[in-house]
Amino acid sequence: MADKATESLLVVSAHAGDFVWRAGGAIALAATRGERATVVCLSYGERGESAKAWREGKQLDEIKALRRDEARAAADVLGADIRFLDAGDYPLLESAELVDRLVRVYRETSPTVVLTHTLADPYNGDHPAAARMAMQARILAQAVGYDAPGEPLGAPPVFSFEPHQSEMSEFRPDVLLDITEVFETKRKAMRCLGAQEHMWTYYEDLAARRGVQLERNAGPNLGLLKNSRAEAFVRHYPHVTATLS
Amino acid sequence: MADKATESLLVVSAHAGDFVWRAGGAIALAATRGERATVVCLSYGERGESAKAWREGKQLDEIKALRRDEARAAADVLGADIRFLDAGDYPLLESAELVDRLVRVYRETSPTVVLTHTLADPYNGDHPAAARMAMQARILAQAVGYDAPGEPLGAPPVFSFEPHQSEMSEFRPDVLLDITEVFETKRKAMRCLGAQEHMWTYYEDLAARRGVQLERNAGPNLGLLKNSRAEAFVRHYPHVTATLS
Amino acid sequence: MADKATESLLVVSAHAGDFVWRAGGAIALAATRGERATVVCLSYGERGESAKAWREGKQLDEIKALRRDEARAAADVLGADIRFLDAGDYPLLESAELVDRLVRVYRETSPTVVLTHTLADPYNGDHPAAARMAMQARILAQAVGYDAPGEPLGAPPVFSFEPHQSEMSEFRPDVLLDITEVFETKRKAMRCLGAQEHMWTYYEDLAARRGVQLERNAGPNLGLLKNSRAEAFVRHYPHVTATLS
Amino acid sequence: MADKATESLLVVSAHAGDFVWRAGGAIALAATRGERATVVCLSYGERGESAKAWREGKQLDEIKALRRDEARAAADVLGADIRFLDAGDYPLLESAELVDRLVRVYRETSPTVVLTHTLADPYNGDHPAAARMAMQARILAQAVGYDAPGEPLGAPPVFSFEPHQSEMSEFRPDVLLDITEVFETKRKAMRCLGAQEHMWTYYEDLAARRGVQLERNAGPNLGLLKNSRAEAFVRHYPHVTATLS
Amino acid sequence: MADKATESLLVVSAHAGDFVWRAGGAIALAATRGERATVVCLSYGERGESAKAWREGKQLDEIKALRRDEARAAADVLGADIRFLDAGDYPLLESAELVDRLVRVYRETSPTVVLTHTLADPYNGDHPAAARMAMQARILAQAVGYDAPGEPLGAPPVFSFEPHQSEMSEFRPDVLLDITEVFETKRKAMRCLGAQEHMWTYYEDLAARRGVQLERNAGPNLGLLKNSRAEAFVRHYPHVTATLS
Amino acid sequence: MADKATESLLVVSAHAGDFVWRAGGAIALAATRGERATVVCLSYGERGESAKAWREGKQLDEIKALRRDEARAAADVLGADIRFLDAGDYPLLESAELVDRLVRVYRETSPTVVLTHTLADPYNGDHPAAARMAMQARILAQAVGYDAPGEPLGAPPVFSFEPHQSEMSEFRPDVLLDITEVFETKRKAMRCLGAQEHMWTYYEDLAARRGVQLERNAGPNLGLLKNSRAEAFVRHYPHVTATLS
Repeated sequence: MADKATESLLVVSAHAGDFVWRAGGAIALAATRGERATVVCLSYGERGESAKAWREGKQLDEIKALRRDEARAAADVLGADIRFLDAGDYPLLESAELVDRLVRVYRETSPTVVLTHTLADPYNGDHPAAARMAMQARILAQAVGYDAPGEPLGAPPVFSFEPHQSEMSEFRPDVLLDITEVFETKRKAMRCLGAQEHMWTYYEDLAARRGVQLERNAGPNLGLLKNSRAEAFVRHYPHVTATLS
Repeated sequence: MADKATESLLVVSAHAGDFVWRAGGAIALAATRGERATVVCLSYGERGESAKAWREGKQLDEIKALRRDEARAAADVLGADIRFLDAGDYPLLESAELVDRLVRVYRETSPTVVLTHTLADPYNGDHPAAARMAMQARILAQAVGYDAPGEPLGAPPVFSFEPHQSEMSEFRPDVLLDITEVFETKRKAMRCLGAQEHMWTYYEDLAARRGVQLERNAGPNLGLLKNSRAEAFVRHYPHVTATLS
Repeated sequence: MADKATESLLVVSAHAGDFVWRAGGAIALAATRGERATVVCLSYGERGESAKAWREGKQLDEIKALRRDEARAAADVLGADIRFLDAGDYPLLESAELVDRLVRVYRETSPTVVLTHTLADPYNGDHPAAARMAMQARILAQAVGYDAPGEPLGAPPVFSFEPHQSEMSEFRPDVLLDITEVFETKRKAMRCLGAQEHMWTYYEDLAARRGVQLERNAGPNLGLLKNSRAEAFVRHYPHVTATLS
Repeated sequence: MADKATESLLVVSAHAGDFVWRAGGAIALAATRGERATVVCLSYGERGESAKAWREGKQLDEIKALRRDEARAAADVLGADIRFLDAGDYPLLESAELVDRLVRVYRETSPTVVLTHTLADPYNGDHPAAARMAMQARILAQAVGYDAPGEPLGAPPVFSFEPHQSEMSEFRPDVLLDITEVFETKRKAMRCLGAQEHMWTYYEDLAARRGVQLERNAGPNLGLLKNSRAEAFVRHYPHVTATLS
Repeated sequence: MADKATESLLVVSAHAGDFVWRAGGAIALAATRGERATVVCLSYGERGESAKAWREGKQLDEIKALRRDEARAAADVLGADIRFLDAGDYPLLESAELVDRLVRVYRETSPTVVLTHTLADPYNGDHPAAARMAMQARILAQAVGYDAPGEPLGAPPVFSFEPHQSEMSEFRPDVLLDITEVFETKRKAMRCLGAQEHMWTYYEDLAARRGVQLERNAGPNLGLLKNSRAEAFVRHYPHVTATLS
Repeated sequence: MADKATESLLVVSAHAGDFVWRAGGAIALAATRGERATVVCLSYGERGESAKAWREGKQLDEIKALRRDEARAAADVLGADIRFLDAGDYPLLESAELVDRLVRVYRETSPTVVLTHTLADPYNGDHPAAARMAMQARILAQAVGYDAPGEPLGAPPVFSFEPHQSEMSEFRPDVLLDITEVFETKRKAMRCLGAQEHMWTYYEDLAARRGVQLERNAGPNLGLLKNSRAEAFVRHYPHVTATLS
């Protein structure tokens, strides 16, 4: 139904690493299908996500460079373009200017699918801030009267990717995405993120757990585990479709 | 992705008319695609949905026959098989026996999609009772140890179709189904239900309203109404998929 | 219980058209009873609600003038005073200054009933922003210590009027207002809004649907449709009353 | 607006004392206005609400008689008719037969307002059971096809009265009823319930607390306490009205 | 604060295996502290939890014996008494008789802590049924007037243990229990359950994931993983305490 | 388990009086145990909480001094240090600067328990603003990369204390704290607040009501009231523990 040439995935990530842990599979799948994939990192996660580097005595600029390089390497592995808005983190401050920069990205990339954080996360204020700005910018980009280059945006579906502590962030999966075929790619991308090495196993295990749930929700053969790997998402707008499935 | 020959839609309806107003489009779409569609009416709606007939002085047996004939005619128009369990309505009483009869229908028809009522409806106690039994029977039918003929059921997705007063029944649409191409069929099926004539216009208008929302959620051209018609559904389990859309 | 001479309705509307579609009946009813009715438009909806005008190539100032004239005409039909704060839309930015301007309107008009948007609306960020400011200003206006002219405000009830997609905006009606007797007036007011012609039928149909629900919630004669027209509202504070009804 | 002669209040109470603590003011107000008021006690609260009597060594029949006499005395003070269905408590078992008995009470008394328990109460399973039956019976009584004497019921509003631990029972007040003028009557009725003497002060204090909130929600003069007394209620269906207030 | 000699843990489990996967750590901790621990299995899980045995062609009686032996072995490892009510599963039918049997267990064991399933589980109807009965029986056991041997029960806190798909079962952890010191015991108990071998790794991984969250919620040293193991619980009543922590 | 010498309680209060009414017992308990207790008042409540003083014709500076003196006296009675950030109230404006000042307090006092307002309060916009800033500052203070003096914060639990109208502020108690032994101290502290004399009785009654609920949730002897006094709290993060109780 979708035309590969016009499919375009946009991922709005608060920090440099988020898009890898939480949506790396979705990005790799899109790239594998030959679709455009763009990652926007609002910050480098230089303050809130780089504890290891700070403990090693690195300076702010070094840390930003380090996180940028890691994120770029991961994006390359996944097959995505990546942009860094360098808006600062911890806190990531919401502003009309930053939202406007996102509007311009929407207008330029014409996404057909948008991924971002959850609107709640009691462990991290930057994540909901990023999600609010991503959603607000999408609405503004739709208005023909909004003063920014490009055509008004359509109505791409928006999905929240999985937060670190799902239940505490009111994350109840609406979609389980089968990423089995690209899981090695995601694993490779995760391993580009040396600053957060302690997350590697956590997110590999999570992919397996979501894979078990995918199998449970997909079909009957409860005992026959197929080692599926999955990512979970929450959908923000009704799914428009011609077929129930 | 789906094999038409094995696709099978099961609709569990509390009363004889519910499946037409609320899921007629989904049924017609499935039938049009050559898929199997089965409607189970737990009751005829003889007490709770037949006010006009009671006011005309008809007797219980007459009313049941009348509703059965109307429902069968509507199912024929939509292209579905229909079965009547005649379990009584107002109240529709939940029982292990009635759930067991539903398990057997699941095992026999091997549905790949299930439609039923919402779990909340403050205006009608039979609707949630039907939904609870439909969902319980689906779980039982999955167990290889459940003693009923046929193979264990897979994990077909379950959707609630739209109740009469959506907001009061905690109905927040997850899916907007485009029924434009089969809307005339649905209209014709609705008009088989003479006992509830006052509903015809209400559900035609609803289809138009949901159509406007479908367009709003699907794309950009706000001003260009295409007269879409839609039905809304709530999804009960995560959507298992290989593509976000 | 209420003294017509002191009853005062205040409607806080994000854009120039909102008050008509969503609360035109409530305004006309108040005016018909001889009560004061004041509409505050925070913006003209010049960017977000004027797609048709932009597509016709009009300029910003023209569009603002156009929307102002249309809104004023509609307010005249409904019998309300109208004020334009011209704070800009898409985005409507929240600020202490704008809230202060609203406080002054509260202090001046001493509303006994307040109407505004819902606090959630995933399709429009301006609507919740307007609602938050309307509710914050009401609280500030109550404080004797708040530095603005006039007497401290009482505790007028606040109602959210109906958003475009009710379920998605967590809008569960608490009140169904019978607007049958003023519906022609509302229709006439809606037709003042040429910039949003595609909304006319949508909101006429909505009034009919809410009318059917009003009848269903009001009384017994399900089959006897009286062609009521209604508007739905959500109440934000407990209803203080001496009679349950 | 309401005709005193046809106004009829129906209170469905799980145990013999509930209607006094939680709705005594509403009942007294209705009686004071010359309206009909009927209390149905599904049980005497003989097992779950009579700890003091059991500790004194009384027998089941004695306790039932004691609670019946107390409840009747309280109903007399409030000005209500009272009926005892003696269906047993702790547990109060739901059954089609008991619901049918309630349907017949609805058909006979034609209530214009219905009061009952909350649908949630983690401290008492009988309360939600009573509420579910009261709401189901109301729906059945509306159906012309339901086989019971009398005319089909209209659509009387249903209110939940306040449970013992409001927040734990998801009780968020929608209505604060001013019972100041009948508070002495309620106090006198409460004191008829010797078996639950420890509740007297608790519910007198609650009436004062709800009274403070009534004043806070009603008007401006925060510092001028008027010693109002109030009862809180949750409304289950939209309020149908011709005036917002 | 607690006296070991009077501490008593009661676990109400729908099927023979549930208590091990979901609360094995809590049970082992209690036993290690010298407290009494009692497990009540309402059924053997003979139909719904024994797919492997059915596929191997075993008969109902064999399967029940198999599950009983496995469960008893696991309980022995954990240090708990175990009882089997053999009430049947898939479906586990709620009845006043079964609740009464649970009341008698409460009265006999005087639990100071109660563990059971969640009240929601869209994948398994027996789990919520068990939880409802466990909670209803606790309330009944508190009433001095309830006719069963033993003293009235106090007010032991009730916790839901973790369901298989937490987010779908509205499971938002209120408590993270540190089971690191008894994790080997839990692992050993899990491995008694040969009928559900596919669950071993899943619940070992879950313990690790909950352990990471425990560390995140307990303290500062994000990067210093200590390999904690944890179980998550939801609390149903307010925590009564003399110290906030 | 806790070391008195390192226990540190931090209370973030929007206005000068809030910490007394809502958390005075918790503060007194901590101080009694020899723990450090620090209160931060973001404002003096000079506009929103000082109606009596304004009505008496006092000036802004007088009122601020008055409230500061009263609050300091109450803190002295309770045994807490107190600081005034004088950020202004009605409205209390959120800003990165104010959050940064709170981060520095966190880093300096190393709280092991944090108390603040609820995140919702439809009667007072300053309360949720204070809560949001308190929670955001806690997260920022945890990051080693955040540029402020002191060590990164651990993960102290956060509790919301009770708002004025609990149900309307989505306040469902998770914790009932027994303050019986320090209640006279709390009463004395409350009476330091002459500017809000109308609150004294209200909060004394509330402590008694929460005390009754504490007894109900703690144990069996329903009829034996012990005149407990309690404060209620909502917990924001899972409770990390080695013992269920």
